[in-house]
Amino acid sequence: MKLILIRHGQSQWNLENRFTGWTDVDLSDKGRLEAAEAGRKLLDAGIIPQYYFTSYLKRAIHTLQIAAEAMDREWVPVYKDWHLNERHYGALQGLNKADTALKYGDEQVHIWRRSYDVMPPALAVDDKRHPRFDPRYAELTADELPATESLKLTIERVRSCWEERIVPALRHYGDVMVAAHGNSLRGLVMMLRHLTPDEVLSLEIPTGTPLVFELDGQLSPVKYYYL
Amino acid sequence: MKLILIRHGQSQWNLENRFTGWTDVDLSDKGRLEAAEAGRKLLDAGIIPQYYFTSYLKRAIHTLQIAAEAMDREWVPVYKDWHLNERHYGALQGLNKADTALKYGDEQVHIWRRSYDVMPPALAVDDKRHPRFDPRYAELTADELPATESLKLTIERVRSCWEERIVPALRHYGDVMVAAHGNSLRGLVMMLRHLTPDEVLSLEIPTGTPLVFELDGQLSPVKYYYL
Repeated sequence: MKLILIRHGQSQWNLENRFTGWTDVDLSDKGRLEAAEAGRKLLDAGIIPQYYFTSYLKRAIHTLQIAAEAMDREWVPVYKDWHLNERHYGALQGLNKADTALKYGDEQVHIWRRSYDVMPPALAVDDKRHPRFDPRYAELTADELPATESLKLTIERVRSCWEERIVPALRHYGDVMVAAHGNSLRGLVMMLRHLTPDEVLSLEIPTGTPLVFELDGQLSPVKYYYL
Repeated sequence: MKLILIRHGQSQWNLENRFTGWTDVDLSDKGRLEAAEAGRKLLDAGIIPQYYFTSYLKRAIHTLQIAAEAMDREWVPVYKDWHLNERHYGALQGLNKADTALKYGDEQVHIWRRSYDVMPPALAVDDKRHPRFDPRYAELTADELPATESLKLTIERVRSCWEERIVPALRHYGDVMVAAHGNSLRGLVMMLRHLTPDEVLSLEIPTGTPLVFELDGQLSPVKYYYL
C-alpha cells in the first residue's frame, strides 16, 4: 500500500502573504503548474493512485484535478472531506501577515503560528466569514464547526478522516492520494511517523511535491520519500 | 427534488466527425465554453445541485468540473460511474462517419445509428481499443464489459445506475446533477418520461444545456424544461 500526499501549490493569497485558513482562495498560475508537475512526477515514478481524497477548498480540489489530468486518471473515485481542510485561522483569516504583526505584535503572531495548542482569536458568531454562513458546511454540527483552531485541533479532526475514510480506502484500493493543505497533511505525517508536537511544528511539507509513504500491512511506513 | 441533466459540450472528435463511444476524447474549447455557460445558467436560475454524477469519460468529467467551477460549488460530492458512459460503438469507434458510410453503406450506418436494438460490429477481443485493456474498467466482470452496444443495452446499464445510485441520492440530497452523454442521458429521460423506443430514438438532447426535471415524491416529473 502507498499513501501519496500532495500539498496544494501556490494560491493567490500565498502570493499576497495573507492568512488563508478556510477562505476558499484559488491557485495562482504557478500553483497550477506545480500541480501538473506533481502528476507528471507520479507518472514517471510509476505510482498510480486508485483512490483520491481532497478537502472542501478549491486550491486543493484543483490541485487534485490538475494532477489527475496530468496522469490521465480523472476517472478515479474521489472523496471530498472538510476534515482535510487547512487549519482554521479564526479572525486572522484575510489579514495580511505584516498588518497582523503590527496589530498584535510579532511575538503574539509567532505564538499563534508556532505553537501546538494555542488558537488565534475566534471569529465572532455573526462575522460573515464564520463557516456557519457557508452552505458547504451546512451538515456539520455546532460542535464540529470551527471559529478558530490550534494545530492540535486541526490534527484531531484529520485523525477522524484517517481512521474512518483513508485507512479503509488503503485496505480496499491499495494506493491512495490525498491532495490537501500544509497543516492537515502535517497531521497525517504525525500519525504515520508518530511525531511529537515539537517535531510536527518543525515539519515543513513543500508545495506541489508528492510525498510517498510505502506502508506495511499494519499501515506502518516501510519508507517514505519525496518525488 | 430536481434532477438536472447536462450533456457534455463539443469534443475534439465531434469536430472531426468521428464515432467516439467509449474513446476518452477531451472537450474542444467550444465544449469548455458550453460547460461554463451551463453552470452560469443554473446559477441564474437559482438551481443548486447537492450531489453530482458523471461518467468515466473526461469529456463528461470536465463538463461537470467546469460547470461546478462556474457555480463555485466544486466541493459538492461527486460519484463517477461507468454505467453513465456513452453508448459503446464497437468497431466503429475512431472511424470517420463519412469513411464508415463508404465502407459499410449509408443504409447500414443509418440502421446502427437509428435503431433501438441493433449493435454495430463488436471490437475483437484482442483489439487494443477493447475496454478490457483499460485499467479504469478493471473491476468490471466479463459480462459487464462491452465490445459493442445497442441503444437498448446502453439504457439497460443506465437503469442500474438510476436505481442503485441516482434515486437514493435524490432522496438524500434533493437536487442532483448528472453530467453525461447523449445516449446515457436519453436512457434517464426514457425512464422518467416512460418513452417508447421510437420516442427515445427521436429524442435529441442538446449539448451543454441543463435539462431540469422537477420530481414529486414518487419521482414522477411534475414538469421539465431546458435552461
